Amino acid sequence: MKKGLFIVLEGPDGSGKTTVADIVCDRLCEKGYEIVHTREPGGIDIAEQIRSVILNPDNTAMDARTEALLYAASRRQHLVEKVIPAVSSGKIVICERFLYSSLAYQGKARGIGFDPIISINEFAINGTYPDVTIFLDVDEETGQKRINSRTSKDRLDAESVNFHRLVNEGYREVLDRFKETKIVDATRDLDTVVSDTLKLILDSIND
Amino acid sequence: MKKGLFIVLEGPDGSGKTTVADIVCDRLCEKGYEIVHTREPGGIDIAEQIRSVILNPDNTAMDARTEALLYAASRRQHLVEKVIPAVSSGKIVICERFLYSSLAYQGKARGIGFDPIISINEFAINGTYPDVTIFLDVDEETGQKRINSRTSKDRLDAESVNFHRLVNEGYREVLDRFKETKIVDATRDLDTVVSDTLKLILDSIND
Repeated sequence: MKKGLFIVLEGPDGSGKTTVADIVCDRLCEKGYEIVHTREPGGIDIAEQIRSVILNPDNTAMDARTEALLYAASRRQHLVEKVIPAVSSGKIVICERFLYSSLAYQGKARGIGFDPIISINEFAINGTYPDVTIFLDVDEETGQKRINSRTSKDRLDAESVNFHRLVNEGYREVLDRFKETKIVDATRDLDTVVSDTLKLILDSIND
Repeated sequence: MKKGLFIVLEGPDGSGKTTVADIVCDRLCEKGYEIVHTREPGGIDIAEQIRSVILNPDNTAMDARTEALLYAASRRQHLVEKVIPAVSSGKIVICERFLYSSLAYQGKARGIGFDPIISINEFAINGTYPDVTIFLDVDEETGQKRINSRTSKDRLDAESVNFHRLVNEGYREVLDRFKETKIVDATRDLDTVVSDTLKLILDSIND
């Protein structure tokens, strides 16, 4: 049986990950591929329980390392219950956010550093790395404008402008470190961004 | 200002940690020491929320690595909110269970291995190691007999006899690895166990 693919879509808040993934997944379905579109915690009950601890606005005393361990725990459970079974049965999994988000948020913006975050995520991922990671690249101003137009905010959305600046710097450093990442300029019109993203995914499928 | 002490009391289920710690703490208080008697999650709200995810009997799909990351997260928050502030203000913290429990349960009994568990716990502990770890040593039969006499059981209590055997083997391997551990034979009468444990703690205080 043909093994599937594990594709990660990364990018800062407001880069359009969900919008782009929705359309790309529809196109792939039309072409006859079996697609699983997900993002952590991805409807996995245990991962949802963990995520609700992370995002609870009352948990202001949460230490940065606690937060990082909880994200890694949620990632692990989502991988085990959703991503790995789908890829094993030949499906194409498109997952919004993965390791890079933890590096940008916890590694850079919370100040823990990249190597400790990579270490606990290696424990969580345990060898199941994405076949390809596509990064939707937007400048900080564009991303921030899109976030501000949202009505509901969680504990992370409510962080300071300075926090989101650090996240963006973090993503720059991630791209410097992981040169194999595919980058799509996501400041352009949606059709072009979708078309480029789709092409990268089809190239991976046919590799 | 005098820095306090961080003392860990370890041992398998049924080794008498809570009973011994209760009496030892009373004796130390009588001698005029400021004592904090705790165990993870220790009444720390965030750590309690994490622990309730771990111990929820409905979470049968929980992966061993998810569980290990959640224990590390709970440990981190308990350290940051309770242990470190108390030790910094000169108090003696007596904490039931710490790293060794994760090694015996997740490292050995769940089959993850010691080194990966040490790695995520190094991230969580971030340098705040106990000044001394005291191990209450009981044989498997004695421990199991004491557990069976309890009325309320959580997800871990309900594990198989084989699981608890592996935990005990795990503790043996922990003691082989961490030779600096102070061992108290806890199969003896309570007065003797308390007296030996108290002596070890007073020795540490006067070191």
